[in-house]
Amino acid sequence: MILATLRDGTADGRLVLVSPDYARYARSPVGTLQAALEQWDALAPGLGAITDFTEALDTADLAAPLPRAWQWLDGSVYASHGDLMDQVIGVTKPKIDFPLMYQGASDKFYGPYDDVRMPSEELGIDFEGEFGAIVDAVPMGIRAEQALGHIKLLVQINDWSLRTLAGTEMKTGFGFVWAKPHCSMAPFAVTPDELGDQWRDGRVCLDLRVDFNGERFGSANGEPMEYSFPELIARAARTRDLVAGTIIGSGTVSNANFREVGSSCIAERRGIEIIDGGEPKTSFMRFGDTVRMEAVNAAGQAPFGTIDQKVVQA
Amino acid sequence: MILATLRDGTADGRLVLVSPDYARYARSPVGTLQAALEQWDALAPGLGAITDFTEALDTADLAAPLPRAWQWLDGSVYASHGDLMDQVIGVTKPKIDFPLMYQGASDKFYGPYDDVRMPSEELGIDFEGEFGAIVDAVPMGIRAEQALGHIKLLVQINDWSLRTLAGTEMKTGFGFVWAKPHCSMAPFAVTPDELGDQWRDGRVCLDLRVDFNGERFGSANGEPMEYSFPELIARAARTRDLVAGTIIGSGTVSNANFREVGSSCIAERRGIEIIDGGEPKTSFMRFGDTVRMEAVNAAGQAPFGTIDQKVVQA
Repeated sequence: MILATLRDGTADGRLVLVSPDYARYARSPVGTLQAALEQWDALAPGLGAITDFTEALDTADLAAPLPRAWQWLDGSVYASHGDLMDQVIGVTKPKIDFPLMYQGASDKFYGPYDDVRMPSEELGIDFEGEFGAIVDAVPMGIRAEQALGHIKLLVQINDWSLRTLAGTEMKTGFGFVWAKPHCSMAPFAVTPDELGDQWRDGRVCLDLRVDFNGERFGSANGEPMEYSFPELIARAARTRDLVAGTIIGSGTVSNANFREVGSSCIAERRGIEIIDGGEPKTSFMRFGDTVRMEAVNAAGQAPFGTIDQKVVQA
Repeated sequence: MILATLRDGTADGRLVLVSPDYARYARSPVGTLQAALEQWDALAPGLGAITDFTEALDTADLAAPLPRAWQWLDGSVYASHGDLMDQVIGVTKPKIDFPLMYQGASDKFYGPYDDVRMPSEELGIDFEGEFGAIVDAVPMGIRAEQALGHIKLLVQINDWSLRTLAGTEMKTGFGFVWAKPHCSMAPFAVTPDELGDQWRDGRVCLDLRVDFNGERFGSANGEPMEYSFPELIARAARTRDLVAGTIIGSGTVSNANFREVGSSCIAERRGIEIIDGGEPKTSFMRFGDTVRMEAVNAAGQAPFGTIDQKVVQA
């Protein structure tokens, strides 16, 4: 099942079901994705049975599939990324036996083609391509083995970051407020079965193609998560119930052979440049710069659609 | 103006206006506090003009005034608390020239008399008495001088904490997920004018009386915030717009003469015990333990009402 949200002037938009060829849509009898997630197991069979896609889809009309959420908990579980980031930010994190995770802004997700408003070019504006899992209600204390069944939808996210502020905030121990403004979401949320065998072991095993100002910047595969999405959910729910519609993020997709496949964020490339040449060469984003992100399957199709955005001054 | 939310089976409840003597209420023409906050300046005069409080108020029917919010950004700006906490947790934070702040769970706030579900007694269950400001929409980059006018309501909060996990998470730099489960809110949200001259310099200058298992534990005054609520709002909004209904927290109320006035959380008292005697004596909460919190004005009245809760096993 492929879901999207049409802009309709409201904060939550209007849920639609999208045809397998992504060309047409049908209005959902449930008005919003949040409402659907609150009764997912009861509603999903009916939604999945809809095949009468009567309307032509113009992706320009689409908001983020979940334009706001009650909770956004973002992991950071690609080891090749984490190690480099520590080096760039200048922190030494202790070895831990659980997934890194922070709580981020969930009150708004930019749509896939929205201009992204940033306050200054001096703050180290960076993109972070990643995947996300959207869950229904998850009880406190759930184990990873039980968490898989709570993953109702998968999404693709750009977790915008302000690198100049990240180290400052991390050193307080309190996590990110300044350094993590609102994220963006690719236009389509899909049920895990839509990915076929590229959804396996609780991981989105797709190449995430990232283009920065029109040039290929990275094409890392989502598979090598040190912890799977079910493990991230168990991490998140250890001391709290997770409300339906909670979004769990993977953190920036990264592969150990990043010199070959490239990176999903600028900071990682700068880290490589520092290691290789003593100093970073790639600049962070400036106003007017663009980033495009598209995860592609073995057939070359993009199940989540495309994020294609420009950074502008707030 | 005094506002409260009646439980009605929905997640957001039903907004009501409460009489000056807290004995009666009138239904609000706007259904929820969130909806009211989204158009506050247009709606507040009409809400304030309501004087026909026809229904008897039973506080047992009340949820948190804002039972869920799109964003909860909690500061930590009482210096006497912060210094002690670093000692207890065993971290050395760098000196910073901005208010400490983290993003916490906002998808649910416990009502004032709800049992609070915790997964284990081994996690250092602690209360944290504090104050909060609820804003309407705040634009990115706002300065503190302009932020005062965006404070529409004040509330009283118990920011539940799991101390055993706090240090572990702080050391990652990513802030709190495990260590900060859902908070509780006292039953009444009030406009700043309700506090008279005890709302001054952007601070709630009330004594916060905290009783742990029926015994007075603390009575610290809210005034000595190192940064005011407007300064906290400017901190929060530096790189993001704040959605209407965002709640900004002060962090645990603490006074430099804590040996005389007591503490608003157990961890602080344990810190004092460590300094004075080498080891902590006061235990964290166990299942069945209770905490009561009430901020009182010069006349001995409690403008936010009372939080009175028991910790139970999840």
